[in-house]
Amino acid sequence: MEYLKDPRAIEEKSFDIIKKGIEKNLYSDEELEVVKRVVHATADFEFARLIKFSNGAVEAGIKAIKAGWSIVTDTRMARAGIKRELAKSFGVRVRCYSSSKEAEKMARERNITRAMAAIILSSYETENKIFVIGNAPTALFKLNELIREGKVYPALVVGVPVGFVGAKESKEELVELPVPSIVVQGCKGGTPVAVAIINALLSLAERRDEVE
Amino acid sequence: MEYLKDPRAIEEKSFDIIKKGIEKNLYSDEELEVVKRVVHATADFEFARLIKFSNGAVEAGIKAIKAGWSIVTDTRMARAGIKRELAKSFGVRVRCYSSSKEAEKMARERNITRAMAAIILSSYETENKIFVIGNAPTALFKLNELIREGKVYPALVVGVPVGFVGAKESKEELVELPVPSIVVQGCKGGTPVAVAIINALLSLAERRDEVE
Repeated sequence: MEYLKDPRAIEEKSFDIIKKGIEKNLYSDEELEVVKRVVHATADFEFARLIKFSNGAVEAGIKAIKAGWSIVTDTRMARAGIKRELAKSFGVRVRCYSSSKEAEKMARERNITRAMAAIILSSYETENKIFVIGNAPTALFKLNELIREGKVYPALVVGVPVGFVGAKESKEELVELPVPSIVVQGCKGGTPVAVAIINALLSLAERRDEVE
Repeated sequence: MEYLKDPRAIEEKSFDIIKKGIEKNLYSDEELEVVKRVVHATADFEFARLIKFSNGAVEAGIKAIKAGWSIVTDTRMARAGIKRELAKSFGVRVRCYSSSKEAEKMARERNITRAMAAIILSSYETENKIFVIGNAPTALFKLNELIREGKVYPALVVGVPVGFVGAKESKEELVELPVPSIVVQGCKGGTPVAVAIINALLSLAERRDEVE
């Protein structure tokens, strides 16, 4: 079968299809770039209605990237998907604590998920951060708690955990907090959604660098 | 907010919800284990109608795992999501060529995607393999070609690329080939779907070990 092999041509054709399927007036131009990346990653147009940006999230994310702040992910899988070279070009490190020995130990001792332990561990460091939670509602619940208690003030929270137990509720909680956030309302979400959002923000930051 | 923190309780509650939402008589018991894992990973019940098993795929996958054959993924992200310790317990290595120097070089020289180059590179090795393609239709098209040309005979192909350009067609091609395959029909798919399928097969292989 004949098929497109050129990466650029594939991407162009794909975004042509996506552009036609998205309701544009729900989002700003920059938000739309993020939304399109998520639809591209999932082939699921429902995300274009479910994504919610709060408290100047896109602007906050771009500024945090340009400031070289770290990105902390809830899973190694999310970490593996983020464009590391592009992040590095801004001095941004991409980190994940969940497979560390400390996280395993804490999870076992307290009978909590490793993702939750990873968030607790990352909060011990006071540097500014972007949090990316694409998998575990428990991690987002814990992060919400830490934010409410004034123990963490994230530059941005990409809160898109997936699942039938707690995911929806953890995201509803997050959007009520006074921090910049990007969520997918409802049960849907997932690591590729989280990764697509961060990679879109990295591209937007890169584009601004070119314009300036 | 009160929320479940115990990983086992979360999983149980989640699978209770999933069980109720799935049309059971489309699949065998073991296939159903795989399907449930995918719905769990995506919170999207549509997958329970779209997943298609061909040529004894589950049985072939379990046997390949128990034989210690390698798993080759199209992306580092897929590799990061697979339960590595469990795979290792069967002697199964999880490998990904797409971020290798050779793949980058080949992609640049031939103006093809890196995922495609990675499949070509992995075919140079004659050992038996499970192929996992969760992202790039081009990688699956290339693999289909190699299968038709008799250059590769995979133990199993998990072919669940996602997207609007080629994903659907690449999967339709695959299911016509005389190799065990698991696909998601249509545009949907993705790395977490691929990872969920492989992790389900690893668990099924583990369970059989216990029973034997």
